[in-house]
This record gives sequence, C-alpha cells and structure tokens, in this order.
Amino acid sequence: MAARDRAASLSDGQRIAWLRLIRTDNVGPATFRQLLNRFGSAEAALDALPDLLKRSAKPVRIASQSAAEDEIAGLMRFGARLVASSEPDYPELLHHIAQAPPILTLAGGANLDWQRTVGVVGARNASSAGIKMTRMLAGDLGERGYTVVSGLARGIDTAAHRASLQTGTIAVLAGGFDKIYPDENIPLAHDILDNGGALLTEMPLGWEPRARDFPRRNRLVSGLSLGIVVVEAAKRSGSLITARLALEQNRDVFAVPGSPLDPRAEGGNALIQQGAKLITCADDIVETLGSADPARQALFDRDWEPDLMPDAPLPGADDKTRLLQALTATPIDVDELIRQSGLSAAAMQMLLLELDLAGQIEWSSGQLVALKY
Amino acid sequence: MAARDRAASLSDGQRIAWLRLIRTDNVGPATFRQLLNRFGSAEAALDALPDLLKRSAKPVRIASQSAAEDEIAGLMRFGARLVASSEPDYPELLHHIAQAPPILTLAGGANLDWQRTVGVVGARNASSAGIKMTRMLAGDLGERGYTVVSGLARGIDTAAHRASLQTGTIAVLAGGFDKIYPDENIPLAHDILDNGGALLTEMPLGWEPRARDFPRRNRLVSGLSLGIVVVEAAKRSGSLITARLALEQNRDVFAVPGSPLDPRAEGGNALIQQGAKLITCADDIVETLGSADPARQALFDRDWEPDLMPDAPLPGADDKTRLLQALTATPIDVDELIRQSGLSAAAMQMLLLELDLAGQIEWSSGQLVALKY
Repeated sequence: MAARDRAASLSDGQRIAWLRLIRTDNVGPATFRQLLNRFGSAEAALDALPDLLKRSAKPVRIASQSAAEDEIAGLMRFGARLVASSEPDYPELLHHIAQAPPILTLAGGANLDWQRTVGVVGARNASSAGIKMTRMLAGDLGERGYTVVSGLARGIDTAAHRASLQTGTIAVLAGGFDKIYPDENIPLAHDILDNGGALLTEMPLGWEPRARDFPRRNRLVSGLSLGIVVVEAAKRSGSLITARLALEQNRDVFAVPGSPLDPRAEGGNALIQQGAKLITCADDIVETLGSADPARQALFDRDWEPDLMPDAPLPGADDKTRLLQALTATPIDVDELIRQSGLSAAAMQMLLLELDLAGQIEWSSGQLVALKY
Repeated sequence: MAARDRAASLSDGQRIAWLRLIRTDNVGPATFRQLLNRFGSAEAALDALPDLLKRSAKPVRIASQSAAEDEIAGLMRFGARLVASSEPDYPELLHHIAQAPPILTLAGGANLDWQRTVGVVGARNASSAGIKMTRMLAGDLGERGYTVVSGLARGIDTAAHRASLQTGTIAVLAGGFDKIYPDENIPLAHDILDNGGALLTEMPLGWEPRARDFPRRNRLVSGLSLGIVVVEAAKRSGSLITARLALEQNRDVFAVPGSPLDPRAEGGNALIQQGAKLITCADDIVETLGSADPARQALFDRDWEPDLMPDAPLPGADDKTRLLQALTATPIDVDELIRQSGLSAAAMQMLLLELDLAGQIEWSSGQLVALKY
C-alpha cells in the first residue's frame, strides 16, 4: 500500500469486502494486493471474481457476506477488531514486509509503542537459565521503553511476555483469536490484555493452528519488531526460522550465546557464527537498535507490486493453455515467461492472477512462479 | 633478522656472547637487535658496551663470561639448550612478532610441527564444563595435526597440555627452566618432555616468575601459534591479554561462547563481540586456519629495525643533554625527535641506544620513546 492509501479508516461495507476477499480460497496477501490493484477496490474485486473463476478446473469458495458478518460479530464478543493495512492503526513496521497481511485481528495495545519493538523468541523446552536470561532481557528492554513481541508459546515466549507485562507486550497467535495455543497460556493472554498489551493474528476466527501456521506466524513476530533476539534454540527450530525471516525483512538479529556443551545453545551460537550479534544484556540490543539508521525503513520497502493495466482485456483460452504448457514445477521468473510466451505483461499478469485464484500456481520469493501439484 | 642471517648455527663462543648480551642489564629484545645492527655481532657489541655505558648515571651490570658458561652448563643438566634467533631451529613463527626473544631456552620438541600450532588458553579456576571443552578442543586439534601451545598454568592450560600429550604440545614458561610454576605441574612438564613435546622460556635459569612475567610469556604463547582459542576467561584476565597480543601479532583469535549468566564466559563473549570468531569445536578452528592466506606471514613482518650507520661517531655530551631535555614521560615519535632536535638520524639512534642501556628511556609500540621515571 502506498502511504496515500493508508490515511482513512474503512467503512463497514469496505471492511466486510476486505474480509470476504482475504477469506476467499486461494487468496493470500500477494493475490489480495494484485486484485486490489487490478480492480481498484475489494468490492470491485469481489464482483469480478465469478468471471475470473469461471474457467477454474476446481470449485473455489468465495467467502460470503454473512460469514464475514459472523466473524466480525464473533470478534466483537472477544473484544477484538479487524484492522486493514490501509487503516491508520495498522502496525507501521508490518507495511515493510513481504506478504504483509491485508487485514489483522487485533485486541488491546492502544497505548503501546508499536515502533520501538523487540521480538524475543526461543525454545519451548527452555532451561531454567534460559528462562532467567529471558526475564532479565525482556524486563530490561521494557524498562528502556521497548515493547516486547513474542509468540505466546511455552518456555521462552511465556517468560518474555510475563517479564514485560507491565511495560508492554505483543503476542502474535498462529491460529484464530478464539483458538489460543497452548491452552495453558489462555490466562497469560488475558493478563496481557488486562495490562494494556496486544494480541493479534491474521488467521480467521475458529482457525485451529496447524504446524505450518507457526512459521507463518513467526514472520509477523519478526515483522512487528525492529530486531529479534534468540535466547535458546536447538539446531533446527522455529526460533531459527524466525531469525531467517527477520534477516529477510532486514531486521536485526541478536542471539544469546551458550556453552557448546549445551544443545539448547546450538541455534544461537550458529546464528552468531552466521553474523547475528552476540548479546549478553538488554543494553547490547538497545545500543545497536539506537544507532540503527532511522532511514533504514526505506530499505524495508519492496517494490514488488505489479504494474497492472486496469483496462487490459481478459486473455483468451489459447493464451491460458500456452502459459500452462510453459509452466513446470520449477520456479521461473515472470519476465522470462513473458519473453518466452510472447504474451503482453498485462495479459500475463491477468492469467497468473486467474491461475493463482484457481489454486494452480504457487509463488516463491514473490517473483518466481511454478505449477502447483 | 633477515632470512639470510638465520642459516647457520652459532659457534660456542658466539652463543656465549649472545647470552651475555641478552642477560646484560637493560638489554631487551629491541636493544639487543639495535646493538647487533650497530656493531655487527654480539662479541663486538660486548666490546663496545663499556664505552657506551661510561656516561651512564647508574651502574649497569654486564653479564660475565662465567655466568653465561654457568647458565649453559646448568641448562645441560636439565636437558635444555639455547637456541638463538639466527639459528635454524628457532621457531619460524616467532620471527614475525615484535620483541621476539633473541635467545630461547628450549627442551624437547625436535619432532613437533612448529608451524601448525594453536594456542589454547583460559582460566586457572576453570569449570568442569570448561575443562571438558578444552579436552575436546585440544584432543581434536591434535588429531587434526595441530600442535597445542599453552602456558602450563592450572585449569584450562593444564587440560590443554594433557589432552594433546600424545599428539604434541608446547609449554611456554614465565620463569627460568628450573622454576616451573605452579609446582603441581612439574610432573606435567616431565610428561610433556617424555611424550616428545617442548618446554621453552626466554627467562634466565633461576628466574622466579613474577606477576609481570606472565603477560610477557603470553606474547610467546600467541607468537608461537597461528591462532589462539580462549576457552574460559573472566572480564579482566591473562587470557584476554593473550588475545590482545595475538591480534597485535596478526594471529587469529577464537573464543568459546558461554551463558551470560556464567562469569567465566564474560571474557570469551566480549572477545566475540569485539570480532573474535565464535567456535564450538576444533573443526571451526581448522576451517579458518586452513583457509588462511598462506601469504599471511608476509603481513607479520615488521620493518622496525633501524637503519643505523655502522661508522657514525658517538654523539657528544651536549647532544645527549639536548635530547634529554626534549624527552618527557609522554611517548614521542623518533622522527619527530629528529626534526625537533636537529640531530642526524644516526646520532639520534646512538644516543637512544645509550640512554636505553642506561635504563633512562622506555619504548612503546616500537617507535615511540619516553623518559623512564
């Protein structure tokens, strides 16, 4: 979204249209933006969907008006609301990540500092030393004016939220607002809201978090943070995924070192070897973030939105067949596809959007496209 | 010493002259080299000393022929010998450090690899985890063909030597060959020699090590090594001094990380923050050393030897007074002194040598000179 698009709140009707569009099958953040760019508004995109989907091999469910209204009513009962990326209270830092959610479910956090934020992540089966370290770090970060972001998981996440309850903390959920995981942290979620903290998720109400939803959630933990600190992490762990996502998002990555004899230090030590900053206290983090170039946010901006021609006609069935023959499971650059197929850029974008909505293709790195099997 | 000077072994007479010269009051490695450069040989320098010292305010003791002969005889009884820096079996890596000892006392080590060397240093009051880590590192380094260098101290040093007894280890002493410290490590010293390892020192036979001799010794531990690894070290510790010296000598510095909650990890973590490489196993070290540019040794060479004119006349008493008035406790560059005093470079060098021998000046960084108070 360009800055000019973010000024105003949505009307109720617009909000319902945004919600229906993002809750529609095969519409992720990237497709959502393409549809908005192509058709000018969520309402217009919804109107155009039946036509775009009529050549789809498999049926695609478009979220209904009543389902959207039910979700909004359900969220209100939980004290949560929807915030669209075009609205003023959408977290600024999230605008600068790839695949930013077009719409978030959010509760609390009205008085939090959403700009001075540090993600604190680590092992669920944390050691007592790891818990103690987390308490020190999150407590001290809070005292220094930073909001602590984490994932409400057991272990390090829990310690991070608890230590920053008074100073401000944000918990990002992997499932729906009514499906807090793990159950044992439901009281913590209440404590966070009672203390002015925030809970947020991009998933629909009622969504049970599955394994693959956690890495997706982790990109929001890092995306909401100026930097993330990994306290304890095994070699292959969700915390390391968060660290990788943070680097892709141009965030700082900090890691707490540990003895090589301790398996829970393997992830952090490896991160440091790969260039993460070794930290031993909150001041190490504050120093780095404090000296970060304020112009750095410009670096976050990704010029990934396609230049669609709004008036381009829908390409013919022949063009679609030609494109499907050109695609394989190997990701290929869109520009290369255009050169090889002889299609116009506008026609290519429309066809890819159609295939995307039909669930026939998948994107990697935002610019590479492949057939989905 | 230039390479051409290192080809041949010394005659017995030359060796005694070298020993007498380095054992003379106020003659350190730098002064020793200046004297050799000025007079062409240790014998000629000894002949010139009385004349150079006749204007000295305080008496300066010149080591006698009989004292030198006694030291050599004493060393023979301990199975040790003297090796001069001009001789072929002087450790090659030591040629590339500032203040390299002109003469070493050495025992054993005939079949060691003196080029593939890693210094392993750390706390005397090591933790059991630190000891275990050291055993793993030193043992694995030995298996990979590296000789382990350390300082025969309690704790980490002891563990490093013990773990590399079979594969080769070098212990550098802070005192005389007959004054092994601590007493409890005399059996370890014997074990090192029995297994083909080496013991060495630059200090005279009979020298009891004092506190300030340990940093001096540490420069030889790092100087004999391609890189050093710090296993456990408190914030202000001898191991950190060794690390600093290693950096000055252009050696690699590695550190084992540890929990910020462990005071014995403070030094290592701080080193990593300052740029030392975090390592968790011997392979991390071997990879870095293996990929080190073989031409790196050229970087070690320091062109610090003054260009003395052998035929320059001894400057007059007026010149000496003028120089003493120009000097203060604040170190000043020799070139600046020459410009300010109007003395020739040759006269300046001779005067500084004379003041050096009289114990009136001290050098820092090899090029800066100051009055000694």
